[in-house]
Amino acid sequence: MAKLLGHSMIGFESGGGTDDTFRAMNPRSGEPLAPDFFSATREDVARAVELAHHAFAAYRQTSGRDKGRLLRHIAGRIESIASPLIERAHLETALPKVRLETETARTVNQLRLFAGVVEEGSWVMARIDRGEPARHPLPKPDIRSMLCPLGPVAIFGASNFPLAFSVAGGDTASALAAGNPVIVKAHPAHPGTSELVGQAITDTTRDLGLPEGVFSLLFDRGTQVGIALVEHPLVRAVGFTGSRKAGRALLDIVAARPEPIPFFGEMSSTNPVFVLPEALRRNADTIASGLYASFTLGAGQFCTKPGIVFLPEGAEAGAFQARLRSLVEGSKGFTLLSAGIHSSYCSSVAGRRTTNAVTVVAEKPSLAQETGFEAGAVLFETDADSFLNHPDLGAEIFGPSTLLVRHSSRDELLRIARNLEGHLTATIHGTDRDLHDFQDLISVLETKVGRLIVNGFPTGVEVCHAMVHGGPYPATSDGRSSSVGSAAILRFCRPICYQEFPNSALPPELKDNNPLEIWRMVDGQMSKKPLSQRGRC
Amino acid sequence: MAKLLGHSMIGFESGGGTDDTFRAMNPRSGEPLAPDFFSATREDVARAVELAHHAFAAYRQTSGRDKGRLLRHIAGRIESIASPLIERAHLETALPKVRLETETARTVNQLRLFAGVVEEGSWVMARIDRGEPARHPLPKPDIRSMLCPLGPVAIFGASNFPLAFSVAGGDTASALAAGNPVIVKAHPAHPGTSELVGQAITDTTRDLGLPEGVFSLLFDRGTQVGIALVEHPLVRAVGFTGSRKAGRALLDIVAARPEPIPFFGEMSSTNPVFVLPEALRRNADTIASGLYASFTLGAGQFCTKPGIVFLPEGAEAGAFQARLRSLVEGSKGFTLLSAGIHSSYCSSVAGRRTTNAVTVVAEKPSLAQETGFEAGAVLFETDADSFLNHPDLGAEIFGPSTLLVRHSSRDELLRIARNLEGHLTATIHGTDRDLHDFQDLISVLETKVGRLIVNGFPTGVEVCHAMVHGGPYPATSDGRSSSVGSAAILRFCRPICYQEFPNSALPPELKDNNPLEIWRMVDGQMSKKPLSQRGRC
Repeated sequence: MAKLLGHSMIGFESGGGTDDTFRAMNPRSGEPLAPDFFSATREDVARAVELAHHAFAAYRQTSGRDKGRLLRHIAGRIESIASPLIERAHLETALPKVRLETETARTVNQLRLFAGVVEEGSWVMARIDRGEPARHPLPKPDIRSMLCPLGPVAIFGASNFPLAFSVAGGDTASALAAGNPVIVKAHPAHPGTSELVGQAITDTTRDLGLPEGVFSLLFDRGTQVGIALVEHPLVRAVGFTGSRKAGRALLDIVAARPEPIPFFGEMSSTNPVFVLPEALRRNADTIASGLYASFTLGAGQFCTKPGIVFLPEGAEAGAFQARLRSLVEGSKGFTLLSAGIHSSYCSSVAGRRTTNAVTVVAEKPSLAQETGFEAGAVLFETDADSFLNHPDLGAEIFGPSTLLVRHSSRDELLRIARNLEGHLTATIHGTDRDLHDFQDLISVLETKVGRLIVNGFPTGVEVCHAMVHGGPYPATSDGRSSSVGSAAILRFCRPICYQEFPNSALPPELKDNNPLEIWRMVDGQMSKKPLSQRGRC
Repeated sequence: MAKLLGHSMIGFESGGGTDDTFRAMNPRSGEPLAPDFFSATREDVARAVELAHHAFAAYRQTSGRDKGRLLRHIAGRIESIASPLIERAHLETALPKVRLETETARTVNQLRLFAGVVEEGSWVMARIDRGEPARHPLPKPDIRSMLCPLGPVAIFGASNFPLAFSVAGGDTASALAAGNPVIVKAHPAHPGTSELVGQAITDTTRDLGLPEGVFSLLFDRGTQVGIALVEHPLVRAVGFTGSRKAGRALLDIVAARPEPIPFFGEMSSTNPVFVLPEALRRNADTIASGLYASFTLGAGQFCTKPGIVFLPEGAEAGAFQARLRSLVEGSKGFTLLSAGIHSSYCSSVAGRRTTNAVTVVAEKPSLAQETGFEAGAVLFETDADSFLNHPDLGAEIFGPSTLLVRHSSRDELLRIARNLEGHLTATIHGTDRDLHDFQDLISVLETKVGRLIVNGFPTGVEVCHAMVHGGPYPATSDGRSSSVGSAAILRFCRPICYQEFPNSALPPELKDNNPLEIWRMVDGQMSKKPLSQRGRC
């Protein structure tokens, strides 16, 4: 096991830190894990941001090839420490090693995906409208634009993906790929994992000769460092994955800044599942098994966990429910990630248990002698009317629980759908006939979510170009973005336009001869060709 | 002249309105113009938004061809009423008829630009990652995504473009093109112009059989209607062009909503101009004449008016200043658009006049017997130190005034540039050698503005694909967007993702055979081809 120091990394140096130390907890035992981690000071935050601001002047001009090299080297270095990294992550999160191996693979794949995107280069959406000096009544100027980075980006590590959405996760990878320095606020539930990855990034940036400040890592047991970070005037954007409460608090702080900045918070989603009549008749068992696997995957601690399931009442619903009941009753206990998630899960389940018209279909009682953050799966059910009358039944419960909602008619189902808040995903189980009969349900759901899934499950978010991991509020604070997949890079940039620039002063992406051979929109047409002579000489 | 009724248009009906009526003012005389306009009620606002919400269900599914037809028909109808429209706009704004003719042409060209964009269809950024059912350890699902509209959009008409950034302006055109219903809050300075254009849009939507509520127009003498509009829970985005104060107030209201929404405010910009040494030596006269024309164009009431001009001190600066002085002294009076702009201009000029270290180089005194909203041009100057020590000298003065700032060194100039707030534009006058010598100035300005202009002037914003009319706060509330040019459509949409959808249930943009023949990113590669068999069958 690598030696952990417990200090923030401010550029290439250790942060000072305060006496306010904290330790990771072993979720299995509830016992603290050495060493002590030192919460960063306000001065640490300021220095990290100032270094990032200064580093931005050079880093924003770094070529796609060199940014690609950085991301690939970070990926390689993470692979080279995979064994101690997974060891420590396993201690801090109690996630199974096989899951952490998969997550390590996902993390390095994400880094390489963004490396590929910036090496190829077309992501900047270069647009060129050639001038027409002879146009009447006024000459048409030569106008060219492309996406450019924003400046220092603050990233909040998420508790539930200690690797893939933490220090070197998708937010960091996409922000670095776009050309932004990154300051990560480590999640206090896995500080050792964070330190190991943070050291890998720091070492890589130093080895590659990048300016100090392209990356910093800040520890904090509480909320002060995060607040100081998003309030800092030189921070230009924020990426956050976490609870609705924390996300909204940060969003409000960001909105109150003298100079507001983009805040990309991925916060809360119950991911409704709609089992349509014919599919239920034909595939109740398969869907029930898949649903069970999905809502208990990772102990139910995924943003995309299906937390509400709508099905038509009747005999088939009974069979579906019976199948789920037996799966829940046969389940083992689950270990949650942190004391906070554990207590929140327990109190949410207790609250739902006492809600009128909601019944517990099945549960796996917790062990009599509880140790650590253990919890059992709970399956609830209710009817459509009660669901409509208790808005809190639509709220996310983070952990291995879901709610079945029986409805009595298509109209009732549509009323429920129209009444939904924003979610990351909605899932429909349906035959071809069901999908045809419920086209209007699909239309309603298109206005409610970022991703629609047919005959699958929302957990297991594919990292690819077309993925959308986002959705209307409160799923995210800005439903026009995705935090997974290559489009995530579009969050951390803005267009800059060059009017009548001489060719020599233009960035390579916009030069006449298209030296990077990227796709560009030239006079409204997509093209990889160099500019012909019509335009400029 | 068409008969004006003075009532809001709520879908296809007239709004009720309150007794709180107002009239447009003739800026030349300061006299009110008939008829009375009735401020909308809260109920009018609610009904307009609810109609828009219901219309959205159908309008969001309208094909690009049909949306293109709508935009082209609106353009045609505006052309058919150009004569009375320009007549009324001239009365309400005192803008010269030739300017209003140009602006009418720009307005219809914008509508047709967006028609072309949605008819062609590639703007939706379709992305397809084909599935690999045989992938190990897990099958890769088929994932497809595209941009879709948001829902009802509130648009605030701008005072300074009574046609091109008002009822049927760029915001409305781009929001309608993306598939969003639009509710326009008319600017009270040109309500008659607004009514004529609003009637043209309403008639067009009715004639084309579009659902009621795709368009509504609300009048208000004050701020209550606008506030009610952006607070309404069914409004999904806001487009605004106006003052920093009003924009920030609306931004804060939007941010405090239970469900925050995107707010695109274009607010405030001083558009710094940098005259570099060799260019000043060679072209002082030409640059001075161009600058004069630019800062007095439209009586200085453009978002892109150059309001600060940096030049190296010395004999050439003196000649430059002398040339400008003679132009200002020879100028005629200017008629401003409204009582509000007039009083704000007068008080801003008076404030600057009393600022230490700022001197008046030249001014055209107002007429002794002032009538209407007349004002004279004023040319100020100061030195770099004073500019750095008085942050309010960087603030926008809306009207025919600019400020020359002499600097004594390259370092001083860079210090000023690094200290700038966000602006829509920055302009550099320089020879090839200047541009080479001042590369670091360009790099700094790239982080401060949305558009950089070489050897031109920022006014006269070309409506094209590559234009960026946006910039870091306070130029806009969200510097990642443009409100001019075809990219403006990207503000009013968000990506939706379809996972494992049968081909029959996918929107045309994402179907295997690419029936619309649009550009799509297929497995990371841009292509217009139908999908080959590898993917789905």
